[in-house]
Amino acid sequence: MRKTRMMKKKEKKIENKMSKVVKQIKETAQNIYQGILKKKQPELQSPIRGLSNVTYNEKDGYFELKGSMKTRTLTASSVKTFAQTLKMMNLSKNLIESEDIATKREAYYVSKNWGEARFMSQPDSDTVMDDVEAMFMVNREQLGFIPEEKGGDIAGRLVVVDKNPDTGKEVRIDCTKFGSGAYSIPSSVEELKFETDAKFILAIETAGMFQRLVKHNYWKKANCILISMGGVPTRACRRFIRRLSDDKKLPVYVFVDGDPYGIGSIYRTLKVGSGNAAHINKFFCVPRARYLGITPQDIIDYKLPTHPLKDVDIKKIKDLLKNDPFIKHHKEWQKALKLLQTMKVRCEQQALAKWGLNYVIDKYLPQKMKNPDKFLP
Amino acid sequence: MRKTRMMKKKEKKIENKMSKVVKQIKETAQNIYQGILKKKQPELQSPIRGLSNVTYNEKDGYFELKGSMKTRTLTASSVKTFAQTLKMMNLSKNLIESEDIATKREAYYVSKNWGEARFMSQPDSDTVMDDVEAMFMVNREQLGFIPEEKGGDIAGRLVVVDKNPDTGKEVRIDCTKFGSGAYSIPSSVEELKFETDAKFILAIETAGMFQRLVKHNYWKKANCILISMGGVPTRACRRFIRRLSDDKKLPVYVFVDGDPYGIGSIYRTLKVGSGNAAHINKFFCVPRARYLGITPQDIIDYKLPTHPLKDVDIKKIKDLLKNDPFIKHHKEWQKALKLLQTMKVRCEQQALAKWGLNYVIDKYLPQKMKNPDKFLP
Repeated sequence: MRKTRMMKKKEKKIENKMSKVVKQIKETAQNIYQGILKKKQPELQSPIRGLSNVTYNEKDGYFELKGSMKTRTLTASSVKTFAQTLKMMNLSKNLIESEDIATKREAYYVSKNWGEARFMSQPDSDTVMDDVEAMFMVNREQLGFIPEEKGGDIAGRLVVVDKNPDTGKEVRIDCTKFGSGAYSIPSSVEELKFETDAKFILAIETAGMFQRLVKHNYWKKANCILISMGGVPTRACRRFIRRLSDDKKLPVYVFVDGDPYGIGSIYRTLKVGSGNAAHINKFFCVPRARYLGITPQDIIDYKLPTHPLKDVDIKKIKDLLKNDPFIKHHKEWQKALKLLQTMKVRCEQQALAKWGLNYVIDKYLPQKMKNPDKFLP
Repeated sequence: MRKTRMMKKKEKKIENKMSKVVKQIKETAQNIYQGILKKKQPELQSPIRGLSNVTYNEKDGYFELKGSMKTRTLTASSVKTFAQTLKMMNLSKNLIESEDIATKREAYYVSKNWGEARFMSQPDSDTVMDDVEAMFMVNREQLGFIPEEKGGDIAGRLVVVDKNPDTGKEVRIDCTKFGSGAYSIPSSVEELKFETDAKFILAIETAGMFQRLVKHNYWKKANCILISMGGVPTRACRRFIRRLSDDKKLPVYVFVDGDPYGIGSIYRTLKVGSGNAAHINKFFCVPRARYLGITPQDIIDYKLPTHPLKDVDIKKIKDLLKNDPFIKHHKEWQKALKLLQTMKVRCEQQALAKWGLNYVIDKYLPQKMKNPDKFLP
């Protein structure tokens, strides 16, 4: 009984979130309309996007907007973009109200029926969508816009509660019951709910390693949820991990290659977000993430086979040490990256196979999991 | 009762297939061993791979090996590769017997414990694996080797019958019950079984279009199985479609962009395979595939927005017309590609959104599905 009430409350919360966006859209449009009636020049405000308008928020753990705004005033030269922004807001309102979805590309083609306001190229329409996203301070999935690409597979101790798109009836997806297969994360995860008694989430770089852990039911032994990211995680995958880890207060251990790409691109992006999309980091970053990937020290301790660092790796390490606010904030990361620099090598997570294909399951992960406190931050 | 017996028979068949490979491996190794005892120079035979040793088999519908063989004799200069080939065969035997799996990359790292026979780089180990695959005339998934990358999502009228990796007990995965999510195809699909009363399989190029058809339960209206390929389909995805379409005698309709890439790379590869992997085409091609993508005629009939052909597109069309055995075999495809060439445009599947986001569901697909006979071959 209590659960049902809680779940209803949650559904209400999601509905409220959506209708709040619709309300914001309506208000913005109303203001412009009223302004015009009063012969005032219409304007739209959105935050300036870029590193100049960003701080690294230590407590929340992501790049945050400082608050500088840009104002777009309706003039002869901006009339088309202005109209397009309003049309895009209208499309979003329709999507939310009809519970439909559209990709960036579809939104571009929908505009082909907007007469003079139609977009001539998709980059133009993408920019306007980004503006609308920033204007309402939401991620575009909350506006009904979904990413072009999917990505992210789940197996293990998790029930995802979704809705039947047709009937609206609850659908319970038990991720322990897919054999060698997995649950594929949908493009938009805003309305999903979760049930789990898992102890942690293990986010894995490669599909091959994920398949090994699934094949040998690692999630059962370790009581966890396995997520395959397939390289840099997609928006949907990042948002899924974030919502799940927040909702269930679950630590997220990230198992990636011991190289500047695994550390600086995959792990860093998952944990704190990226510089050029600061207005959405707060929805996509995963502050609970810790690094369980191959560390430079692991390479030594486990006598792992390596590859020499490529030029692009060396450049990336230098860049991370010099410019990345997250790395600059954490001495442990600087130490690790400098060690990698000195050793001049990188190491893939599959290198553990030198000691046997299932060494990763029988030794490496259990040994690591004894001391999560020692994971790199 | 009858079904159970049939299913047992099928399981038997799969087991036989696997143990047949083990038997072949043992025989080959035995022959070499016996040869050595008799002081004969050991040799291994495998088919020559490449277009020179390939015919286009019209009836079966894929590029087929003609049968030329190369023989690798054990000499001073080939001793290392020879040893590596035998070690790789041994790894495969162990994988099959222990029902385990390994990626190409893992196999490379396993070799790091082979002493002098270890590989110095992964391309070397990949080549030896390809040789072993060709030697036994199977796809490498049957040898226990799985692809690095996953890919391919399923929703709709299909029950996949898999096994619990732990207990070996049957697991039934109902692809109608994933809400807005989907079933993600595992890396190896050799042992899956299927139950369905669907009328056809719809294989879709983009994740965005797939998500739309899932969101609006298109599979329920059309009584079909939806598969998201996400660009050029992975090995697992191709093999899944092939096994499902063979097993259930289902036509496969391929819904891709109307451009040389969608036609010549995605559709052509799915249907007949590729030139440089001819020894495995027979396992991966989908002869039942028909083209339901945007045709040049659709662009005219539906007044669809287009993009100009890029240089790479123009080059690709010329190349397809001149060199591709599949295109050269089908006049209808030559006609369609020449029309595209004359129109100088390409068209994405999302272009249908010009007429409304769900025009594709309400009009385009139903109209097309009235005449599957007219689909391009």
